[in-house]
Amino acid sequence: MKVVTLGEIMLRLTPHGYNRLVQADDFEAVYGGAEANVAAALANWGEYAAFVSKVPAHEIGQGAVNALRRCGVETRFLLRGGERLGIYYAERGADRRASNVIYDRAGSAFALSAPEEYDWPHIFDGADWFHFTGITPALGKNAEKIAEAACREAARRGITVSCDVNYRSKLWEEGRAGNVMEKLLGYADVCIVNENQAKELFGIEGEDALPRMAERFSLRAAAFTYRRTEDALHNRIWSVLYAGGAEYTSRKYEMEMVDRIGGGDAFAAGLIYALGHRYAPQKAVDFAEAASCIKHSVPGDFCLCSVEEIESLAAGGACGRVSR
Amino acid sequence: MKVVTLGEIMLRLTPHGYNRLVQADDFEAVYGGAEANVAAALANWGEYAAFVSKVPAHEIGQGAVNALRRCGVETRFLLRGGERLGIYYAERGADRRASNVIYDRAGSAFALSAPEEYDWPHIFDGADWFHFTGITPALGKNAEKIAEAACREAARRGITVSCDVNYRSKLWEEGRAGNVMEKLLGYADVCIVNENQAKELFGIEGEDALPRMAERFSLRAAAFTYRRTEDALHNRIWSVLYAGGAEYTSRKYEMEMVDRIGGGDAFAAGLIYALGHRYAPQKAVDFAEAASCIKHSVPGDFCLCSVEEIESLAAGGACGRVSR
Amino acid sequence: MKVVTLGEIMLRLTPHGYNRLVQADDFEAVYGGAEANVAAALANWGEYAAFVSKVPAHEIGQGAVNALRRCGVETRFLLRGGERLGIYYAERGADRRASNVIYDRAGSAFALSAPEEYDWPHIFDGADWFHFTGITPALGKNAEKIAEAACREAARRGITVSCDVNYRSKLWEEGRAGNVMEKLLGYADVCIVNENQAKELFGIEGEDALPRMAERFSLRAAAFTYRRTEDALHNRIWSVLYAGGAEYTSRKYEMEMVDRIGGGDAFAAGLIYALGHRYAPQKAVDFAEAASCIKHSVPGDFCLCSVEEIESLAAGGACGRVSR
Amino acid sequence: MKVVTLGEIMLRLTPHGYNRLVQADDFEAVYGGAEANVAAALANWGEYAAFVSKVPAHEIGQGAVNALRRCGVETRFLLRGGERLGIYYAERGADRRASNVIYDRAGSAFALSAPEEYDWPHIFDGADWFHFTGITPALGKNAEKIAEAACREAARRGITVSCDVNYRSKLWEEGRAGNVMEKLLGYADVCIVNENQAKELFGIEGEDALPRMAERFSLRAAAFTYRRTEDALHNRIWSVLYAGGAEYTSRKYEMEMVDRIGGGDAFAAGLIYALGHRYAPQKAVDFAEAASCIKHSVPGDFCLCSVEEIESLAAGGACGRVSR
Amino acid sequence: MKVVTLGEIMLRLTPHGYNRLVQADDFEAVYGGAEANVAAALANWGEYAAFVSKVPAHEIGQGAVNALRRCGVETRFLLRGGERLGIYYAERGADRRASNVIYDRAGSAFALSAPEEYDWPHIFDGADWFHFTGITPALGKNAEKIAEAACREAARRGITVSCDVNYRSKLWEEGRAGNVMEKLLGYADVCIVNENQAKELFGIEGEDALPRMAERFSLRAAAFTYRRTEDALHNRIWSVLYAGGAEYTSRKYEMEMVDRIGGGDAFAAGLIYALGHRYAPQKAVDFAEAASCIKHSVPGDFCLCSVEEIESLAAGGACGRVSR
Amino acid sequence: MKVVTLGEIMLRLTPHGYNRLVQADDFEAVYGGAEANVAAALANWGEYAAFVSKVPAHEIGQGAVNALRRCGVETRFLLRGGERLGIYYAERGADRRASNVIYDRAGSAFALSAPEEYDWPHIFDGADWFHFTGITPALGKNAEKIAEAACREAARRGITVSCDVNYRSKLWEEGRAGNVMEKLLGYADVCIVNENQAKELFGIEGEDALPRMAERFSLRAAAFTYRRTEDALHNRIWSVLYAGGAEYTSRKYEMEMVDRIGGGDAFAAGLIYALGHRYAPQKAVDFAEAASCIKHSVPGDFCLCSVEEIESLAAGGACGRVSR
Repeated sequence: MKVVTLGEIMLRLTPHGYNRLVQADDFEAVYGGAEANVAAALANWGEYAAFVSKVPAHEIGQGAVNALRRCGVETRFLLRGGERLGIYYAERGADRRASNVIYDRAGSAFALSAPEEYDWPHIFDGADWFHFTGITPALGKNAEKIAEAACREAARRGITVSCDVNYRSKLWEEGRAGNVMEKLLGYADVCIVNENQAKELFGIEGEDALPRMAERFSLRAAAFTYRRTEDALHNRIWSVLYAGGAEYTSRKYEMEMVDRIGGGDAFAAGLIYALGHRYAPQKAVDFAEAASCIKHSVPGDFCLCSVEEIESLAAGGACGRVSR
Repeated sequence: MKVVTLGEIMLRLTPHGYNRLVQADDFEAVYGGAEANVAAALANWGEYAAFVSKVPAHEIGQGAVNALRRCGVETRFLLRGGERLGIYYAERGADRRASNVIYDRAGSAFALSAPEEYDWPHIFDGADWFHFTGITPALGKNAEKIAEAACREAARRGITVSCDVNYRSKLWEEGRAGNVMEKLLGYADVCIVNENQAKELFGIEGEDALPRMAERFSLRAAAFTYRRTEDALHNRIWSVLYAGGAEYTSRKYEMEMVDRIGGGDAFAAGLIYALGHRYAPQKAVDFAEAASCIKHSVPGDFCLCSVEEIESLAAGGACGRVSR
Repeated sequence: MKVVTLGEIMLRLTPHGYNRLVQADDFEAVYGGAEANVAAALANWGEYAAFVSKVPAHEIGQGAVNALRRCGVETRFLLRGGERLGIYYAERGADRRASNVIYDRAGSAFALSAPEEYDWPHIFDGADWFHFTGITPALGKNAEKIAEAACREAARRGITVSCDVNYRSKLWEEGRAGNVMEKLLGYADVCIVNENQAKELFGIEGEDALPRMAERFSLRAAAFTYRRTEDALHNRIWSVLYAGGAEYTSRKYEMEMVDRIGGGDAFAAGLIYALGHRYAPQKAVDFAEAASCIKHSVPGDFCLCSVEEIESLAAGGACGRVSR
Repeated sequence: MKVVTLGEIMLRLTPHGYNRLVQADDFEAVYGGAEANVAAALANWGEYAAFVSKVPAHEIGQGAVNALRRCGVETRFLLRGGERLGIYYAERGADRRASNVIYDRAGSAFALSAPEEYDWPHIFDGADWFHFTGITPALGKNAEKIAEAACREAARRGITVSCDVNYRSKLWEEGRAGNVMEKLLGYADVCIVNENQAKELFGIEGEDALPRMAERFSLRAAAFTYRRTEDALHNRIWSVLYAGGAEYTSRKYEMEMVDRIGGGDAFAAGLIYALGHRYAPQKAVDFAEAASCIKHSVPGDFCLCSVEEIESLAAGGACGRVSR
Repeated sequence: MKVVTLGEIMLRLTPHGYNRLVQADDFEAVYGGAEANVAAALANWGEYAAFVSKVPAHEIGQGAVNALRRCGVETRFLLRGGERLGIYYAERGADRRASNVIYDRAGSAFALSAPEEYDWPHIFDGADWFHFTGITPALGKNAEKIAEAACREAARRGITVSCDVNYRSKLWEEGRAGNVMEKLLGYADVCIVNENQAKELFGIEGEDALPRMAERFSLRAAAFTYRRTEDALHNRIWSVLYAGGAEYTSRKYEMEMVDRIGGGDAFAAGLIYALGHRYAPQKAVDFAEAASCIKHSVPGDFCLCSVEEIESLAAGGACGRVSR
Repeated sequence: MKVVTLGEIMLRLTPHGYNRLVQADDFEAVYGGAEANVAAALANWGEYAAFVSKVPAHEIGQGAVNALRRCGVETRFLLRGGERLGIYYAERGADRRASNVIYDRAGSAFALSAPEEYDWPHIFDGADWFHFTGITPALGKNAEKIAEAACREAARRGITVSCDVNYRSKLWEEGRAGNVMEKLLGYADVCIVNENQAKELFGIEGEDALPRMAERFSLRAAAFTYRRTEDALHNRIWSVLYAGGAEYTSRKYEMEMVDRIGGGDAFAAGLIYALGHRYAPQKAVDFAEAASCIKHSVPGDFCLCSVEEIESLAAGGACGRVSR
């Protein structure tokens, strides 16, 4: 399977341990972003995964490139230029103190890149799958156009298009998200969203929300992800996949989390992997949810877990025994 | 509100992670002490909070000053001189291995300072509230006299006096604590204590212990704090406030703790803040308990949490969701 | 009590926090090994404990010697020479991601040492107890002969011999373990094993498995240890000791673990300590299990906990309160 | 002496040791900026030093405030708001590999703040001295106007105005620097510059450059600073002060540097301190140069050295002996 | 230019700062090896550089793969399997205490790999250059045959072959090195060696040693590298290149080193780059020596410096000024 | 050789890198003290070396014991009890900023221990050599008496007594040092001192100062150590030994230092080792000076260098080449 993802990659700065941002004398530095995380997971699982974006030509931009290459992501389509790499500060919460994210991504090389800089026919040559999330068009008019151009070319070529709606209200101007996502989902074959977003953006709610999502956007598969927050380190997650006219509910996981960020992206990567490898729907949603679950035990944005580990967890195998 | 607190600030040395003291090749260094922690919390919440003590003129003393200034504590009344800053070694426990504290505070600049070094009329000029804990008079005859002089001057000026009894039997000579605290509580308007201490020091116990505390010491408000220890990292806490002739029980919290130390001081700071801002008693005890709860999720002695975070927790709001 | 243990000590490399091995830019370095861990625990508890092995004459070998000396282990019988110190990489798991151990111990100085290098009469001069585990003979024909020579000399002198079967199938050639352990247990007075191993190696199972183990090998005491794995950080452990014709079940512990490795060795050390000090069987198994439990809260291989801490836990004392 | 400085404070991110930016998995985090560094030095020396700027209301902005407060800088005039705190990445060089700085400061809260947000009459109430550098007006039209308004009000009140020209060509649009600095120096009483900048911005060069600088801008004192770079860690520095119609050359220092950044700001702070305390010119330039020299031995942007240390170095005292 | 290198990559473990190996509680972990370092430098400079070796299929082997991918090295020809990745412990020296390296590489996946596992026609498809060092055949008969097969196939295809003799007497059986290197250099077009090695292995010494090396092995280019050791952190280096019948001496560098290891490999990479890009001989040797020099300022095995930095140093440009 | 040393061991707290004490958020923790350092060096060189002192029974005291055991020092004569372990804060200097030490050692377990707690006949059983420094009697009347009792018993048994005068004026009451050291040196066979101390304490100066020292105190050997301070990291050291009626000057070393502390103690250890092994005087002073020199390259108080390394340096061998 050859997957292309499009989006922004940022430098993530995290204080050590459970220190708050105001206590930080050191920051752990990793790189990540919704679509970059999907590419990293897929590359880690042995798939061809190209990440498309624009990063500055300086050393911090190179740091992002290197982080992707380290995982085996194909980076030759990454544009180089612009002024800055977006940053986000991520404070780990604990107990009743929630984790906290401060974005400092305005003016990034990607957000300011022009649609005509991307040579989609070249990028998509030989590709099977294109993935993006709702964060990309939220970054501005340019990014929206880039996403649309990519979708159009992918559709033209019959490449499967998946979209994780990933709605973050703070990133959007009031009222813009619904229209833009409506338009872009028109190109999609697979969509991941949650109940609140389906309702807020598309007015779709109720027991038949998932089939209606699928119908509205002519989707081959649609998934709702669920997350219940007990406290900063304990979440319960599960998901429902609608495919072939039926709904499939994944296993549920009560998790004690090491790193909350990237959990949804691991789900998306897992779903792409499973659908791309033609897993039956139940197995597909279980694989995707297991990928999401186990990602929460790994520091950083990326799901650095093997297919074997995920399969074993998805199959309900005993977990947690020391392997030695 | 202008708050003055009096006491000792120490250097706290903690091994990394869950290492034991005998394993330590590095110590995390923070500064703290019961009354300093109260001042830091109040300053962090935007109040004027002056901390009064004496620290050596050398760099370690300066480190303590800087830690307080970093939080916005008013440090201009800190005396400089003497030989040493007290130290305490704090080992984090885990599971059934309790946390362990070793004090090395004898002979500190504060404990050896003389009552006449403190210019209380100057210090209290414009102040609304004076706070100290039972640790201060426990440090010796000098410290007892300093505390008493402060109490007298505060009372003379009609400044509200609060005292957290904070009884640590190891710090007191046999039998001295009851008399001294009896005397000092005579100046207090607000008192924080727990059931065991009320019984051991003042012979007050039973269902009406709180009202009797209030009556015995003519208190405007008295609070009992409760802590049940499940294991080194899991505690259950709540409190009861007696004010205006009635008892108000706070919400209860079952906590998974990051840092146990300073939890009681955050309660005291919260109560001062709430009473000073004329919160109704139920809201006051809920604010104080929420401050205490959330402090346990923050490394170090200080409650580096905002009023908004505490209000949100006290109001029973959903907690733990990533803020992004 | 004078205890001698024989086995391999390795360098253990662990990524910081919950990082995976592929994320490691730093490794925490400690030294450990089943029998070395037993010696370290006993020395830490004030007993004479000599560790016998062979380590390279270079600085990494010296690092192992120093780690043992730091705990008070007698190291004068350690042979110096050979090419390498065995290594194991240990990745901490979390939640449903299991901990992972990669051994890199082939060709170690100990595994390649010759039986005639060990002067057992000299080593055992004045000793009361000899302990080894099934890992030692698993390391090869040489190590098996060394273990057998030690057992023979110990038996000849009437020294108590204990063996923790510690069966790791990966270390043994197919089918070799049963015969070798059968032979070596012939010298043993005390044996620690678990149900699966008793069945797989000796065909002993069922309700009377423990008495049959004791009978088969003429043991003074035999113990079954139990471990149920909830997830990577939560285990439930207990044990049953058979001694004097009766079975004694220890308290059970549900643990939140800091470091899983060395938990079984702490049990062995605890049992040796308790039996050597002539504890009654119930008290002995409770002490051993408490030692095992509390070890899981300490980073590294060694049980750096005091007899007082273990006694207090075994006695069911309140645990987890800050000691100050 | 009461000093007010105006400018931008940034988050500085530095890889550990001599790691390059592309190798960084951790960044040391400190806060600094030319005028903030001057304020920190003066506050550290016991002077009243207020820093005026605008920082975001979020936790990273608060981190900057706390770093200043920690040194005793007066922060009550700091505006809060805007989106981001500027960042700079600083890579330590070694041997022939130069140190490298990447600025990511566009769009900062300060650069986008409006002149009318600053209440100069209030800020300057009681002040003796106002200091800024050429970096401030370089940040854009807004910052230029803010600087000019401050200069005007300072001049109106007879407050001494000092300016460190600090010309960084990358920050300025082509050709703008000369005119702007010409205008702002019109308000200055004291100016620090180097030979290249005097020539490039003002066309002043030759043996009498310093007196001509003083004459052109009606300065009470003007200083040229010199730096010769041997390699990334070895520099030679000295300076010449023109005051009262004569030139005074400082001692020269060949330095092995720990942290190159902030060396010029320490000179400025030292000169302000010395002139403010009415040191004779030779003593003044020696003090300023010693402050600069010793700063290079301290990590971070701030000159965390005492007046005593600087005086001792300036006086040519033996240096480097362990003080014990 | 498409370069293929063949050799072993190891895990390098280094204590922090100037700690000795026996003091290490943490090891910095990087990956490196003579030929891997050459590939990393070339990939870093934008060239296609494939590294050929065999590493275990486990996570430590993956760590080596990831380190190479991070730099852009082509890793698809890396065989996976075998038991262990070689290790070397590297202690940084200081002043008169020399740096110390302990190898623990016996039995590595590469050393035990079989010649027939390598598909040279496939690997060399499209390649221009093949590089190896004398360390590879030193690792044993297998590795020698692998190197010879590679040389043969490269020669057959007219691919340029370069060899860095890199003689380490400890790695070779007595007397074997001369014959083996004699044979392998028969395939070489470019050779790097030093005076001592030329004399010891080939009996070539004297003023005309370089031309005689070239003649003996029909080399297009031969280089002698020189290193004078003042102390553990200060070395003086230069080199002489013989090409086209003349000798070209590089600039000399007196260095204060951050990391000694990989300096020679940076020279080799620089020479390959320069000759491959058809630099004139003087420029080529200056580029190679500058690459070597600047590498010594970077932690780790790899020369993470840009072509621009190296060109600038080689051109004698001012060095060490902060770039901002 | 069996050596006994007597003195205080402290916890040393050092900020990371070149951070100043006021910047420290972490302290490196090692243990050391003049006489403990001598014992550690000798044990490291394979000699029996017992350290006699008193440390608290708590975990920090145990940390000191463990640090000594790690090096092989005999710790069974260490008394346990008292309240605190002395501390010293050590800030590394750089360039012209001197290193800084703050002692916090008053009230230590050793300083408050009673002479009758030490069973010298038992301690000295089988010993050949007793060493102490002038720091011990400086710690107070108790410590002086302990030192004198030790000297008396050593003299009675014909054990060689060595004393490093190690005069620190801050530790002594005015005028007390001369008399006390005069008395104690009456027991000494070997004395180490420097010119200033000889003059200040004993009025001995001039060209024949060393012979006069030897004569005055009937010494078998007397040494003057010299240290010239260029800056915080560069010192020049050498020494002169008077023995058998002649003076022997050691090699001189210009050092770039990693850790200044313990350099003098390494000299003392080296001299004891050399004289105890009956080295000729020139070889003895060269060995001692080389031990001192190489210690400066090792972090911490202890001279963790081998006899081979020292002999090689003393013999003027090439130094600094990587050993691989």
